[in-house]
Amino acid sequence: MLNNIRVVLSHTTHPGNIGAAARAMKTMGLRHLYLINPRHFPDPQADAMAAGADDVLRDAVVCGSIDEALQGVVFTVAMTARLRDISLEVKTPREAMPLLQQHAAAQPVALLFGTEMSGLTNEEMGRAQLLAHIPANPDFSSLNLAAAVQVMCYELSVAAGAGLPALAETHPAPHEQVEGFFSHLEKALFEIGFFTTQNPARLMQRLRRLYARARLEQEEINILRGILSVTTEYNARLKTRYLQEHK
Amino acid sequence: MLNNIRVVLSHTTHPGNIGAAARAMKTMGLRHLYLINPRHFPDPQADAMAAGADDVLRDAVVCGSIDEALQGVVFTVAMTARLRDISLEVKTPREAMPLLQQHAAAQPVALLFGTEMSGLTNEEMGRAQLLAHIPANPDFSSLNLAAAVQVMCYELSVAAGAGLPALAETHPAPHEQVEGFFSHLEKALFEIGFFTTQNPARLMQRLRRLYARARLEQEEINILRGILSVTTEYNARLKTRYLQEHK
Repeated sequence: MLNNIRVVLSHTTHPGNIGAAARAMKTMGLRHLYLINPRHFPDPQADAMAAGADDVLRDAVVCGSIDEALQGVVFTVAMTARLRDISLEVKTPREAMPLLQQHAAAQPVALLFGTEMSGLTNEEMGRAQLLAHIPANPDFSSLNLAAAVQVMCYELSVAAGAGLPALAETHPAPHEQVEGFFSHLEKALFEIGFFTTQNPARLMQRLRRLYARARLEQEEINILRGILSVTTEYNARLKTRYLQEHK
Repeated sequence: MLNNIRVVLSHTTHPGNIGAAARAMKTMGLRHLYLINPRHFPDPQADAMAAGADDVLRDAVVCGSIDEALQGVVFTVAMTARLRDISLEVKTPREAMPLLQQHAAAQPVALLFGTEMSGLTNEEMGRAQLLAHIPANPDFSSLNLAAAVQVMCYELSVAAGAGLPALAETHPAPHEQVEGFFSHLEKALFEIGFFTTQNPARLMQRLRRLYARARLEQEEINILRGILSVTTEYNARLKTRYLQEHK
Protein backbone atom coordinates (compact mmCIF):
# COMPACT_ATOMS: atom_id res chain seq x y z
CA MET A 1 0.00 0.00 0.00
CA LEU A 2 2.93 2.33 0.67
CA ASN A 3 3.59 1.87 -3.03
CA ASN A 4 0.53 4.02 -3.85
CA ILE A 5 1.83 6.94 -1.81
CA ARG A 6 3.78 9.76 -3.39
CA VAL A 7 5.68 12.33 -1.38
CA VAL A 8 5.49 15.69 -3.13
CA LEU A 9 7.97 18.45 -2.26
CA SER A 10 7.05 21.84 -3.66
CA HIS A 11 9.72 24.40 -4.56
CA THR A 12 12.40 23.00 -2.27
CA THR A 13 15.25 25.47 -1.82
CA HIS A 14 18.07 23.33 -0.43
CA PRO A 15 19.00 20.21 -2.41
CA GLY A 16 20.39 18.66 0.79
CA ASN A 17 16.83 18.56 2.12
CA ILE A 18 15.69 16.64 -0.96
CA GLY A 19 18.38 14.03 -0.33
CA ALA A 20 17.60 13.80 3.39
CA ALA A 21 13.88 13.50 2.57
CA ALA A 22 14.62 10.65 0.17
CA ARG A 23 16.59 8.89 2.90
CA ALA A 24 13.79 9.43 5.41
CA MET A 25 11.23 8.02 2.94
CA LYS A 26 13.27 4.96 2.12
CA THR A 27 13.89 4.06 5.77
CA MET A 28 10.11 3.87 6.17
CA GLY A 29 9.51 1.91 2.98
CA LEU A 30 8.30 4.75 0.70
CA ARG A 31 9.80 5.31 -2.73
CA HIS A 32 7.82 7.70 -4.95
CA LEU A 33 9.23 11.20 -4.75
CA TYR A 34 7.77 14.09 -6.80
CA LEU A 35 9.52 17.46 -6.95
CA ILE A 36 7.71 20.60 -8.06
CA ASN A 37 10.23 23.10 -9.45
CA PRO A 38 13.10 22.31 -7.09
CA ARG A 39 15.68 25.09 -7.09
CA HIS A 40 18.62 22.69 -7.59
CA PHE A 41 18.09 19.14 -8.76
CA PRO A 42 19.86 16.87 -9.43
CA ASP A 43 22.61 18.11 -7.15
CA PRO A 44 25.66 16.58 -5.40
CA GLN A 45 24.33 17.76 -2.00
CA ALA A 46 21.12 15.83 -2.57
CA ASP A 47 23.15 12.71 -3.40
CA ALA A 48 25.32 13.14 -0.31
CA MET A 49 22.37 13.50 2.05
CA ALA A 50 20.49 10.58 0.48
CA ALA A 51 23.21 8.31 1.89
CA GLY A 52 22.11 5.22 0.00
CA ALA A 53 18.62 6.26 -1.02
CA ASP A 54 19.96 7.24 -4.43
CA ASP A 55 17.39 5.01 -6.14
CA VAL A 56 14.63 7.22 -4.72
CA LEU A 57 16.42 10.29 -6.09
CA ARG A 58 17.09 8.66 -9.45
CA ASP A 59 13.39 7.78 -9.88
CA ALA A 60 12.16 11.17 -8.58
CA VAL A 61 9.67 12.85 -10.94
CA VAL A 62 10.37 16.53 -11.51
CA CYS A 63 7.16 18.46 -12.28
CA GLY A 64 6.46 21.97 -13.51
CA SER A 65 3.25 22.42 -11.52
CA ILE A 66 1.30 21.01 -8.61
CA ASP A 67 -1.42 19.71 -10.91
CA GLU A 68 1.17 17.72 -12.80
CA ALA A 69 2.47 16.25 -9.52
CA LEU A 70 -1.04 15.32 -8.36
CA GLN A 71 -2.23 13.81 -11.64
CA GLY A 72 -4.18 10.62 -10.93
CA VAL A 73 -4.15 11.23 -7.16
CA VAL A 74 -7.47 10.66 -5.35
CA PHE A 75 -6.57 11.96 -1.88
CA THR A 76 -4.00 14.56 -0.87
CA VAL A 77 -2.86 15.50 2.61
CA ALA A 78 -1.01 18.81 2.76
CA MET A 79 1.32 19.80 5.60
CA THR A 80 0.88 23.06 7.41
CA ALA A 81 2.92 24.62 10.20
CA ARG A 82 0.43 27.46 10.71
CA LEU A 83 -3.08 26.99 12.04
CA ARG A 84 -4.51 30.46 11.48
CA ASP A 85 -6.72 31.45 8.61
CA ILE A 86 -7.16 27.90 7.56
CA SER A 87 -10.52 26.72 6.39
CA LEU A 88 -9.70 23.11 5.53
CA GLU A 89 -9.94 20.39 8.14
CA VAL A 90 -6.68 19.92 10.09
CA LYS A 91 -5.61 16.67 11.74
CA THR A 92 -2.57 15.42 13.64
CA PRO A 93 -0.16 13.06 11.85
CA ARG A 94 -1.54 10.22 13.96
CA GLU A 95 -5.07 10.93 12.79
CA ALA A 96 -4.26 11.80 9.19
CA MET A 97 -1.84 9.06 8.15
CA PRO A 98 -4.23 6.13 8.73
CA LEU A 99 -6.70 7.93 6.42
CA LEU A 100 -4.04 8.43 3.75
CA GLN A 101 -3.02 4.82 4.15
CA GLN A 102 -6.65 3.69 3.80
CA HIS A 103 -7.10 5.57 0.53
CA ALA A 104 -3.76 4.26 -0.69
CA ALA A 105 -5.11 0.73 -0.53
CA ALA A 106 -6.87 1.30 -3.84
CA GLN A 107 -5.49 4.34 -5.61
CA PRO A 108 -2.63 6.89 -5.68
CA VAL A 109 -2.50 9.38 -2.85
CA ALA A 110 -0.12 12.22 -2.03
CA LEU A 111 1.55 13.79 0.95
CA LEU A 112 2.39 17.38 0.11
CA PHE A 113 5.18 19.49 1.66
CA GLY A 114 5.80 23.18 0.99
CA THR A 115 8.99 25.17 0.69
CA GLU A 116 11.39 25.46 3.65
CA MET A 117 10.78 29.09 4.51
CA SER A 118 7.08 29.61 4.01
CA GLY A 119 5.42 26.24 3.50
CA LEU A 120 2.63 25.74 1.00
CA THR A 121 0.75 28.58 -0.65
CA ASN A 122 -2.99 28.85 -0.11
CA GLU A 123 -3.46 27.83 -3.72
CA GLU A 124 -1.43 24.67 -3.15
CA MET A 125 -3.29 23.85 0.08
CA GLY A 126 -6.56 24.25 -1.77
CA ARG A 127 -5.62 21.20 -3.84
CA ALA A 128 -5.65 18.98 -0.73
CA GLN A 129 -8.59 17.20 0.90
CA LEU A 130 -7.06 17.37 4.36
CA LEU A 131 -4.34 19.28 6.20
CA ALA A 132 -1.92 17.74 8.68
CA HIS A 133 -0.09 19.65 11.39
CA ILE A 134 2.77 18.28 13.49
CA PRO A 135 2.20 19.71 16.97
CA ALA A 136 5.39 21.55 17.89
CA ASN A 137 6.90 23.79 20.52
CA PRO A 138 5.01 27.09 20.13
CA ASP A 139 8.26 28.98 20.76
CA PHE A 140 10.26 27.02 18.20
CA SER A 141 8.14 25.23 15.69
CA SER A 142 10.55 25.15 12.76
CA LEU A 143 10.97 21.48 11.98
CA ASN A 144 13.50 20.83 9.28
CA LEU A 145 11.78 19.75 6.04
CA ALA A 146 13.40 16.30 6.02
CA ALA A 147 12.61 15.90 9.73
CA ALA A 148 8.94 16.55 8.97
CA VAL A 149 9.10 14.02 6.12
CA GLN A 150 10.64 11.53 8.56
CA VAL A 151 7.86 12.02 11.12
CA MET A 152 5.09 11.67 8.52
CA CYS A 153 6.63 8.63 6.81
CA TYR A 154 7.14 7.07 10.24
CA GLU A 155 3.44 7.56 11.01
CA LEU A 156 2.53 6.11 7.61
CA SER A 157 4.68 3.11 8.23
CA VAL A 158 3.11 2.57 11.66
CA ALA A 159 -0.34 2.98 10.05
CA ALA A 160 0.69 0.33 7.53
CA GLY A 161 1.29 -2.05 10.40
CA ALA A 162 5.04 -1.77 10.93
CA GLY A 163 5.95 -3.23 14.27
CA LEU A 164 8.50 -5.39 15.93
CA PRO A 165 9.22 -8.87 14.70
CA ALA A 166 8.16 -11.68 17.01
CA LEU A 167 10.01 -11.68 20.30
CA ALA A 168 13.23 -13.59 20.49
CA GLU A 169 12.36 -16.88 22.15
CA THR A 170 12.27 -16.52 25.91
CA HIS A 171 11.88 -19.30 28.42
CA PRO A 172 9.84 -17.98 31.29
CA ALA A 173 10.00 -20.33 34.21
CA PRO A 174 6.86 -22.28 35.13
CA HIS A 175 5.07 -21.47 38.36
CA GLU A 176 6.48 -24.33 40.42
CA GLN A 177 10.05 -23.36 39.59
CA VAL A 178 9.43 -19.75 40.59
CA GLU A 179 7.87 -20.95 43.85
CA GLY A 180 10.77 -23.33 44.39
CA PHE A 181 13.07 -20.35 44.11
CA PHE A 182 11.05 -18.33 46.63
CA SER A 183 11.10 -21.20 49.14
CA HIS A 184 14.81 -21.60 48.66
CA LEU A 185 15.31 -17.85 49.05
CA GLU A 186 13.24 -17.66 52.22
CA LYS A 187 15.04 -20.66 53.71
CA ALA A 188 18.41 -19.19 52.85
CA LEU A 189 17.55 -15.83 54.36
CA PHE A 190 16.54 -17.63 57.57
CA GLU A 191 19.75 -19.63 57.60
CA ILE A 192 22.03 -16.66 57.24
CA GLY A 193 20.14 -14.94 60.04
CA PHE A 194 18.73 -12.17 57.86
CA PHE A 195 15.26 -12.33 59.36
CA THR A 196 16.39 -11.56 62.88
CA THR A 197 16.08 -7.88 62.00
CA GLN A 198 13.33 -8.03 59.38
CA ASN A 199 9.68 -9.04 59.17
CA PRO A 200 9.90 -12.20 57.00
CA ALA A 201 6.40 -12.07 55.45
CA ARG A 202 6.68 -8.44 54.48
CA LEU A 203 10.15 -8.77 53.06
CA MET A 204 9.23 -11.83 51.02
CA GLN A 205 6.30 -9.90 49.60
CA ARG A 206 8.61 -7.13 48.44
CA LEU A 207 11.04 -9.61 46.93
CA ARG A 208 8.17 -11.34 45.14
CA ARG A 209 7.20 -8.00 43.61
CA LEU A 210 10.72 -7.39 42.41
CA TYR A 211 11.05 -10.80 40.76
CA ALA A 212 7.57 -10.64 39.33
CA ARG A 213 8.57 -7.57 37.37
CA ALA A 214 11.66 -9.36 36.14
CA ARG A 215 9.66 -12.33 34.79
CA LEU A 216 12.24 -14.93 35.70
CA GLU A 217 13.52 -17.47 33.22
CA GLN A 218 14.42 -21.06 34.11
CA GLU A 219 18.11 -20.48 33.59
CA GLU A 220 18.05 -17.37 35.75
CA ILE A 221 16.37 -19.34 38.53
CA ASN A 222 19.12 -21.92 38.26
CA ILE A 223 21.69 -19.16 38.65
CA LEU A 224 19.90 -17.54 41.59
CA ARG A 225 19.44 -20.86 43.39
CA GLY A 226 23.10 -21.61 42.73
CA ILE A 227 24.00 -18.37 44.48
CA LEU A 228 21.69 -19.25 47.38
CA SER A 229 23.27 -22.69 47.74
CA VAL A 230 26.77 -21.29 47.81
CA THR A 231 25.71 -18.61 50.27
CA THR A 232 24.24 -21.07 52.76
CA GLU A 233 27.13 -23.51 52.35
CA TYR A 234 29.57 -20.70 52.99
CA ASN A 235 27.48 -19.68 55.95
CA ALA A 236 27.40 -23.24 57.22
CA ARG A 237 31.21 -23.50 56.91
CA LEU A 238 31.63 -20.20 58.79
CA LYS A 239 29.34 -21.47 61.53
CA THR A 240 31.26 -24.77 61.81
CA ARG A 241 34.58 -22.90 62.02
CA TYR A 242 33.18 -20.52 64.63
CA LEU A 243 31.92 -23.42 66.70
CA GLN A 244 35.26 -25.22 66.40
CA GLU A 245 37.21 -22.10 67.42
CA HIS A 246 34.99 -21.57 70.47
CA LYS A 247 34.94 -25.16 71.55
CA MET B 1 7.44 16.65 32.48
CA LEU B 2 9.50 16.96 29.29
CA ASN B 3 11.82 18.97 31.51
CA ASN B 4 12.87 15.79 33.31
CA ILE B 5 13.96 14.12 30.09
CA ARG B 6 17.54 14.20 28.91
CA VAL B 7 18.59 13.19 25.42
CA VAL B 8 22.00 11.51 25.58
CA LEU B 9 24.10 11.15 22.42
CA SER B 10 27.07 8.84 22.79
CA HIS B 11 30.28 9.35 20.78
CA THR B 12 28.63 11.30 17.97
CA THR B 13 30.94 11.53 14.96
CA HIS B 14 29.43 14.39 12.92
CA PRO B 15 28.86 17.69 14.71
CA GLY B 16 26.12 18.54 12.17
CA ASN B 17 24.09 15.69 13.64
CA ILE B 18 24.43 17.18 17.12
CA GLY B 19 23.05 20.48 15.84
CA ALA B 20 20.21 18.82 13.92
CA ALA B 21 19.37 16.73 17.00
CA ALA B 22 19.22 19.88 19.13
CA ARG B 23 16.84 21.42 16.60
CA ALA B 24 14.68 18.28 16.56
CA MET B 25 14.53 18.28 20.38
CA LYS B 26 13.59 21.91 20.65
CA THR B 27 10.78 21.66 18.09
CA MET B 28 9.21 19.03 20.36
CA GLY B 29 9.76 20.97 23.59
CA LEU B 30 12.83 19.12 24.91
CA ARG B 31 15.94 20.96 26.06
CA HIS B 32 18.41 18.84 28.02
CA LEU B 33 21.13 17.49 25.76
CA TYR B 34 24.00 15.36 27.11
CA LEU B 35 26.97 14.47 24.91
CA ILE B 36 29.30 11.60 25.77
CA ASN B 37 32.72 12.22 24.19
CA PRO B 38 31.52 13.88 20.99
CA ARG B 39 34.26 13.87 18.33
CA HIS B 40 33.85 17.61 17.60
CA PHE B 41 31.99 19.93 19.95
CA PRO B 42 31.42 22.82 20.02
CA ASP B 43 31.65 23.13 16.26
CA PRO B 44 30.39 25.61 13.62
CA GLN B 45 28.59 22.77 11.79
CA ALA B 46 26.61 21.99 14.93
CA ASP B 47 25.63 25.66 15.23
CA ALA B 48 24.59 25.82 11.58
CA MET B 49 22.37 22.72 11.79
CA ALA B 50 20.80 23.85 15.10
CA ALA B 51 19.15 26.69 13.16
CA GLY B 52 17.92 28.56 16.20
CA ALA B 53 18.21 25.84 18.83
CA ASP B 54 21.54 27.32 19.91
CA ASP B 55 20.32 27.55 23.52
CA VAL B 56 20.04 23.74 23.59
CA LEU B 57 23.61 23.49 22.28
CA ARG B 58 24.90 26.14 24.68
CA ASP B 59 23.45 24.31 27.68
CA ALA B 60 24.53 20.86 26.46
CA VAL B 61 26.44 18.87 29.08
CA VAL B 62 29.58 17.21 27.74
CA CYS B 63 30.41 14.04 29.70
CA GLY B 64 33.41 11.73 29.79
CA SER B 65 31.43 8.55 30.40
CA ILE B 66 27.95 7.10 30.18
CA ASP B 67 27.71 6.84 33.96
CA GLU B 68 28.37 10.54 34.23
CA ALA B 69 25.62 11.26 31.68
CA LEU B 70 23.12 9.03 33.51
CA GLN B 71 23.85 10.30 37.01
CA GLY B 72 20.57 10.76 38.90
CA VAL B 73 18.55 9.10 36.14
CA VAL B 74 15.94 6.55 37.27
CA PHE B 75 14.84 5.15 33.89
CA THR B 76 16.78 4.90 30.65
CA VAL B 77 15.49 3.90 27.23
CA ALA B 78 18.26 3.00 24.77
CA MET B 79 17.82 3.00 21.01
CA THR B 80 18.74 0.00 18.96
CA ALA B 81 18.62 -0.55 15.21
CA ARG B 82 19.47 -4.25 15.51
CA LEU B 83 17.19 -6.82 17.07
CA ARG B 84 19.49 -9.83 17.14
CA ASP B 85 21.33 -11.04 20.20
CA ILE B 86 19.45 -8.70 22.44
CA SER B 87 18.39 -9.84 25.85
CA LEU B 88 16.71 -6.68 27.12
CA GLU B 89 13.04 -6.01 26.46
CA VAL B 90 12.46 -4.13 23.17
CA LYS B 91 9.46 -1.90 22.48
CA THR B 92 8.32 0.33 19.63
CA PRO B 93 8.62 4.12 20.08
CA ARG B 94 4.85 4.28 20.53
CA GLU B 95 5.01 1.78 23.39
CA ALA B 96 8.22 3.02 24.98
CA MET B 97 7.76 6.79 25.04
CA PRO B 98 4.62 6.83 27.22
CA LEU B 99 6.61 4.76 29.75
CA LEU B 100 9.53 7.19 29.66
CA GLN B 101 7.09 10.05 29.97
CA GLN B 102 5.41 8.39 32.98
CA HIS B 103 8.69 8.02 34.83
CA ALA B 104 9.64 11.58 33.90
CA ALA B 105 6.68 12.85 35.90
CA ALA B 106 8.68 12.42 39.08
CA GLN B 107 12.37 12.03 38.32
CA PRO B 108 15.05 12.41 35.63
CA VAL B 109 14.97 9.92 32.78
CA ALA B 110 17.14 9.47 29.70
CA LEU B 111 16.79 8.60 26.05
CA LEU B 112 20.08 7.18 24.84
CA PHE B 113 21.38 7.22 21.24
CA GLY B 114 24.56 5.53 20.02
CA THR B 115 27.14 6.54 17.46
CA GLU B 116 26.14 7.01 13.79
CA MET B 117 27.87 3.98 12.35
CA SER B 118 27.43 1.27 14.94
CA GLY B 119 24.91 2.45 17.53
CA LEU B 120 25.34 1.71 21.21
CA THR B 121 27.80 -0.85 22.58
CA ASN B 122 26.45 -3.78 24.57
CA GLU B 123 27.97 -2.22 27.66
CA GLU B 124 26.04 1.00 27.04
CA MET B 125 22.79 -0.86 26.35
CA GLY B 126 23.26 -2.75 29.60
CA ARG B 127 22.79 0.55 31.43
CA ALA B 128 19.21 0.88 30.11
CA GLN B 129 15.99 -0.56 31.56
CA LEU B 130 14.34 -0.80 28.15
CA LEU B 131 15.29 -0.77 24.48
CA ALA B 132 13.36 1.02 21.75
CA HIS B 133 13.49 0.14 18.08
CA ILE B 134 12.07 2.28 15.26
CA PRO B 135 10.59 -0.23 12.80
CA ALA B 136 12.27 0.48 9.47
CA ASN B 137 12.56 -0.81 5.94
CA PRO B 138 14.50 -4.08 6.30
CA ASP B 139 16.39 -3.28 3.10
CA PHE B 140 17.34 0.24 4.20
CA SER B 141 17.10 0.79 7.90
CA SER B 142 19.73 3.50 8.31
CA LEU B 143 17.82 6.41 9.82
CA ASN B 144 19.93 9.49 10.21
CA LEU B 145 20.77 10.10 13.90
CA ALA B 146 18.90 13.42 14.03
CA ALA B 147 15.95 11.86 12.18
CA ALA B 148 15.76 9.18 14.87
CA VAL B 149 15.94 11.87 17.56
CA GLN B 150 13.08 13.69 15.76
CA VAL B 151 10.88 10.58 15.69
CA MET B 152 11.47 9.79 19.36
CA CYS B 153 10.98 13.38 20.56
CA TYR B 154 7.83 13.54 18.45
CA GLU B 155 6.50 10.41 20.17
CA LEU B 156 7.45 11.88 23.55
CA SER B 157 5.63 15.06 22.76
CA VAL B 158 2.53 13.14 21.67
CA ALA B 159 2.79 11.06 24.85
CA ALA B 160 2.94 14.31 26.80
CA GLY B 161 -0.38 15.28 25.29
CA ALA B 162 0.62 17.50 22.38
CA GLY B 163 -2.28 17.91 20.04
CA LEU B 164 -4.06 20.46 17.99
CA PRO B 165 -5.41 23.63 19.55
CA ALA B 166 -9.18 23.88 19.68
CA LEU B 167 -10.79 23.97 16.27
CA ALA B 168 -11.24 27.33 14.64
CA GLU B 169 -14.85 28.26 15.24
CA THR B 170 -17.09 26.66 12.66
CA HIS B 171 -20.79 27.26 12.21
CA PRO B 172 -22.34 23.98 11.18
CA ALA B 173 -25.84 24.56 9.92
CA PRO B 174 -28.74 23.29 12.06
CA HIS B 175 -30.81 20.38 10.81
CA GLU B 176 -33.73 22.43 9.48
CA GLN B 177 -31.46 24.56 7.34
CA VAL B 178 -29.77 21.50 5.87
CA GLU B 179 -33.21 20.02 5.14
CA GLY B 180 -34.36 23.32 3.68
CA PHE B 181 -31.45 23.14 1.29
CA PHE B 182 -32.26 19.55 0.27
CA SER B 183 -35.90 20.50 -0.43
CA HIS B 184 -34.75 23.46 -2.46
CA LEU B 185 -32.25 21.31 -4.33
CA GLU B 186 -34.81 18.63 -5.15
CA LYS B 187 -37.34 21.20 -6.30
CA ALA B 188 -34.74 22.93 -8.46
CA LEU B 189 -33.66 19.67 -10.05
CA PHE B 190 -37.29 18.96 -10.89
CA GLU B 191 -37.75 22.41 -12.35
CA ILE B 192 -34.76 22.22 -14.67
CA GLY B 193 -35.99 18.83 -15.83
CA PHE B 194 -33.04 16.89 -14.42
CA PHE B 195 -35.18 14.06 -13.05
CA THR B 196 -36.64 13.10 -16.41
CA THR B 197 -33.56 10.88 -16.89
CA GLN B 198 -32.77 10.02 -13.26
CA ASN B 199 -34.40 8.23 -10.36
CA PRO B 200 -35.16 11.14 -7.96
CA ALA B 201 -35.07 9.24 -4.65
CA ARG B 202 -31.84 7.46 -5.46
CA LEU B 203 -30.12 10.57 -6.70
CA MET B 204 -31.18 12.60 -3.68
CA GLN B 205 -29.77 9.88 -1.46
CA ARG B 206 -26.41 10.15 -3.18
CA LEU B 207 -26.43 13.93 -2.90
CA ARG B 208 -27.29 13.68 0.77
CA ARG B 209 -24.28 11.47 1.29
CA LEU B 210 -22.00 13.95 -0.45
CA TYR B 211 -23.22 16.90 1.61
CA ALA B 212 -23.20 14.93 4.83
CA ARG B 213 -19.48 14.37 4.40
CA ALA B 214 -19.02 18.08 3.78
CA ARG B 215 -20.78 19.06 7.03
CA LEU B 216 -22.40 22.15 5.60
CA GLU B 217 -22.18 25.53 7.26
CA GLN B 218 -24.99 28.10 7.29
CA GLU B 219 -23.15 30.45 4.99
CA GLU B 220 -22.43 27.67 2.55
CA ILE B 221 -26.10 26.76 2.49
CA ASN B 222 -26.92 30.38 1.70
CA ILE B 223 -24.47 30.26 -1.19
CA LEU B 224 -25.79 26.95 -2.51
CA ARG B 225 -29.42 28.08 -2.29
CA GLY B 226 -28.43 31.29 -4.01
CA ILE B 227 -27.04 29.24 -6.88
CA LEU B 228 -30.23 27.17 -6.99
CA SER B 229 -32.40 30.30 -7.10
CA VAL B 230 -30.41 31.79 -9.95
CA THR B 231 -30.45 28.47 -11.78
CA THR B 232 -34.22 28.11 -11.61
CA GLU B 233 -34.80 31.78 -12.42
CA TYR B 234 -32.57 31.45 -15.45
CA ASN B 235 -34.41 28.30 -16.38
CA ALA B 236 -37.74 30.03 -15.93
CA ARG B 237 -36.59 32.89 -18.16
CA LEU B 238 -35.42 30.40 -20.80
CA LYS B 239 -38.77 28.66 -20.67
CA THR B 240 -40.66 31.93 -20.96
CA ARG B 241 -38.56 32.96 -23.97
CA TYR B 242 -39.04 29.56 -25.58
CA LEU B 243 -42.75 29.75 -25.09
CA GLN B 244 -42.89 33.27 -26.52
CA GLU B 245 -40.81 32.25 -29.58
CA HIS B 246 -43.04 29.28 -30.27
CA LYS B 247 -46.29 31.04 -29.69
